Formats: sequence, C-alpha cells, structure tokens
Amino acid sequence: MKIDVLTLFPEMFEGVFSASIMKKAADKGKATFRAVNFRDYAEGKHKVVDDYPYGGGAGMVLKPQPLFDAVDDLKKTAENPRVILMCPQGERYTQQKAEELSKEEHLIFLCGHYEGYDERVRQHLVTDEISIGDYVLTGGELGAMVVADSVVRLLPGVLGNEDSAVKDSFSSGLLEHPHYTRPADFRGMKVPDVLLSGNHKHIDEWRREESLKRTWERRPDLLELIELTKEEQQQIDSWKIRK
Amino acid sequence: MKIDVLTLFPEMFEGVFSASIMKKAADKGKATFRAVNFRDYAEGKHKVVDDYPYGGGAGMVLKPQPLFDAVDDLKKTAENPRVILMCPQGERYTQQKAEELSKEEHLIFLCGHYEGYDERVRQHLVTDEISIGDYVLTGGELGAMVVADSVVRLLPGVLGNEDSAVKDSFSSGLLEHPHYTRPADFRGMKVPDVLLSGNHKHIDEWRREESLKRTWERRPDLLELIELTKEEQQQIDSWKIRK
Repeated sequence: MKIDVLTLFPEMFEGVFSASIMKKAADKGKATFRAVNFRDYAEGKHKVVDDYPYGGGAGMVLKPQPLFDAVDDLKKTAENPRVILMCPQGERYTQQKAEELSKEEHLIFLCGHYEGYDERVRQHLVTDEISIGDYVLTGGELGAMVVADSVVRLLPGVLGNEDSAVKDSFSSGLLEHPHYTRPADFRGMKVPDVLLSGNHKHIDEWRREESLKRTWERRPDLLELIELTKEEQQQIDSWKIRK
Repeated sequence: MKIDVLTLFPEMFEGVFSASIMKKAADKGKATFRAVNFRDYAEGKHKVVDDYPYGGGAGMVLKPQPLFDAVDDLKKTAENPRVILMCPQGERYTQQKAEELSKEEHLIFLCGHYEGYDERVRQHLVTDEISIGDYVLTGGELGAMVVADSVVRLLPGVLGNEDSAVKDSFSSGLLEHPHYTRPADFRGMKVPDVLLSGNHKHIDEWRREESLKRTWERRPDLLELIELTKEEQQQIDSWKIRK
C-alpha cells in the first residue's frame, strides 16, 4: 500500500512515519509513506496556497489549484487512489471504514491546517471525507496519522502473531476484560483470586462476565449491536436490579 | 500548561511537538511538552515493562511498577495533575472534554502500545480514561497527540485572532457552510453566483441555509442538540418532502 499525505507541515509526520507500526510496515515492504508539501505545487513566485473567501468573512480558504495539481501528480504513480479529505464534516471514522480502506492500493490524504477547503476540492477531487471524532483539531494531520495507523495494522503480514493475538476491543463487539500481571500484590493492590486459581473454566467465565459488565457500564450502545446469549441477558438484568 | 506523555515511543512525538500549534504554544510560553520513556523507570537490569497475563492468554500486559513510579516522579513538579489513560474502553472524547481539560495546569498521558494495561493502573493511578473513537490503533500515542492538540488550541493566547476567527464546526452546533476562494472559475468549476453578488444579506442567508442543509444531510444527530428557529424547521421539512 502506498500512503501519500498532502500537508503544509510534512515535518509533523517524521516521528510517526519512522516509528512503531508504520516503520514495521515499511521495513517489511508492505507500505510506503510520504508527506508531500502541497505548497510546492502552488503557482507563482510566492507559492501562495490560500486566499480570502468569496462573500467575505474571517479566515482563509485553501485555493483549489495546488491541491488539484498535487493529486494529479501523485495519481501518475498509481491508478484509482482513494483521495481522503480530513475534515470535521466528514463521515465519522469507524473500524469498518478502516477495514474497507485496508483493501486499497493507494491512499492520498488531504490535510488542511487552520484554513477551510475550497468547496470544489470537496465536490470534484476527493472520494472520501473523514472525521475522526467530534472535537476540533488544528489541522487534518493528526487525523491522517490516525487513519493511516488503523489501516496499516490491518495489512496482512504487518502485525506479528504475538501482537495480533491481543484481543481488540470492537472486534468481539464487547470491551476487553481487565488484565493483570505480576506482582500479585503491588503496594497492597491485589490481583483477583480467580486469576491465580489455575481453574481455566472459572477464569474464562470471570473474563466473559467482566467484559460484559464493563461494556454494560461504559458503552451500553455496543450491546445493541451484538447478539447476547440468554445467560448474558439474565446477567445484565440482575445488575440492573442491583443498581 | 504542562503536558507530559509516558510512552515507549517518545520519538513519535518529536515532529508533532515541534510543529504547528504545539510549537506556537511553546514559543509563547503557554505550554511545555515532554515525551518520557517509562522504560527508564522500570526496575531491574533489563528494564522490563511488561509480563505475561495472570490467568493465561495471548498478549502481554504492562506491569504496574514502571507507570506508578513514573507518575509519582512527574507529580513532584506539579500538584494534582490529570492522569489520562488513552484506551479503547475510555469515555468517548468530545469538544466538551477538551474544554474541561484546557482548564487544568498539568496533564499526564499514559500510552500503552500493543500491550494491555494492568487493571491496577486503571483503578488506582489514572483520573480519566479517554478513547478518541471506535477504531483500533496500535497504541495510545496518536490519541495523546489528538487530545493535546485540541486542548492546547483552547488555551488563551495560543491561537492568533485570524485563526480563532475561523468558525469551528461543533462550536455553533452546525457543520460549516461551503467556502470558496479565487478563481471564480477553476477548470470549469464555478463559484456560486450569490457569493460574487456583493449582497451580504443574501450571502448570509445562503451560508446559514447551506450550513443547515449540510448538517441535516450528514449529521442529523447534531440537530437534536440545538434549538432550531421556526424558519429553519420549515426549511428542513421542505427538504424532507423533496427527498
């Protein structure tokens, strides 16, 4: 997979692209990463990328020309890329979308910063608009890193066995059960007896119940998306009564 | 504001902490940023930070000792920090939470990577658990950057006038209206006539209507959170009929 980011702050990506899962994917030849300054594509001596908004108002708007020309150029190296605009108006990003994008060969991210986008970029250049959540960020760069991380880790062969075996929240539909490791007593804080019992049936039951309870307490919306067994539904009903 | 991040990948933060809004905040003396490798706090010659889970199962779990000791140490430099665990089970991050955190003096982020957290960290060390969205990331680092960015830009004096004047989505409760800048005709794609008309009453009406329409089309859930005028409700009803 080829991942290109169009940004005015390419230096923001250095640490992230050269560490952790991105580095792993690059080292294994599964993905390439590039942060491209689209100011380089701006016409004119002063390489201006933004201008005042038509109709007046505060703030600046990114001109269409540098972004269209940059995408045209990047498209030469691969056919049919997904061109993804990071913006608050975009569709809310989900794990399902990560899985969809992980099947593509080429992703191009457009990151604005402070400025708004010219609407023609939205209507005629991009294939997807993504928001990573309902909060205001200074630019699209962190969003592009988030999407890239979540997609790259899904590429076959990127995560080692020991990593991928860690149960992910969301993939089972429930939040994870609590984890404990040594020491059994840390500053007076103890590990639950059942985990030290060696009885794997009891351990599995405890974990499933804790996972269910945590989801019920913290994210009841997730319970509506999965099929609960009769026992699990009874368990939840008993918590409701006790509450 | 003092922002400390405990991570096994401090190098991931270099590009982000030294660019954009973080740099601006640091240059203005409004915030300091530090990425601390909590492996430095691990006991023993081999500085081991994780161990097998009690009760068996795949994956590794972060030991409590290095994280507790690191937070103890960071607490020496400021009283009552918020200690924030980045994790999928956390509360969903929102703009409201960003505003709450922006009033604090010291934020400490704990970032796991691949591994799970020992439950005692969750129960006895942290004050907040935050998830930036329903998708799986390789570690908490990108989430910590997202939260830090969204908080720092709210600190008084960090954003210049020209930046903060840009209307943020979510702060008005509606998504932003479309923006356009020059040229009026780019490769045959034209700017709407009203924006070139010079009639500011018409421009304001058009913008308000486009903002409402975009919110209705893309994020109808947001409309339930705000008070609509009678005219706006009638407008939406007319779109519903036409659809």
